[in-house]
Amino acid sequence: MKAKVFVTLKNGVLDPQGKAAHGSLERAGYSFIKDIRIGKVIEIELDDMDRTEAEDRLAEICEKLLANTVMENYRVEIDG
Amino acid sequence: MKAKVFVTLKNGVLDPQGKAAHGSLERAGYSFIKDIRIGKVIEIELDDMDRTEAEDRLAEICEKLLANTVMENYRVEIDG
Repeated sequence: MKAKVFVTLKNGVLDPQGKAAHGSLERAGYSFIKDIRIGKVIEIELDDMDRTEAEDRLAEICEKLLANTVMENYRVEIDG
Repeated sequence: MKAKVFVTLKNGVLDPQGKAAHGSLERAGYSFIKDIRIGKVIEIELDDMDRTEAEDRLAEICEKLLANTVMENYRVEIDG
């Protein structure tokens, strides 16, 4: 089965990468952009299991390894 | 209005970051993970406009700046 995990910076945490992209777009004349924040999307292929169990197990690995919960939020989405 | 852009590596392009995360998880005993690929999710706040126009403009900045279309795919999703 497949799942996606979205890891994004919490509000208030500075995002230099997003700021750089925003600056480049402004300099290139794309003034309709107000703000950009850049996070990660982690596409995971895992053994087939119960949907709830998959959500629990993925939340566990997010807490332990995939996200830095001091600065980042995460959201698990099971495909299909 | 808000939009999200998902930038992911094309099939066949090596993903050292994903491989490292997968390796760490395996060493930590999480053997139910078969594969991990890591991409970017770009959260964009932009001026209000027609939905189709927003999609076109965002596709343009993806092609020009946000994605490297040689190695990466992108997908634009307008929120709401």
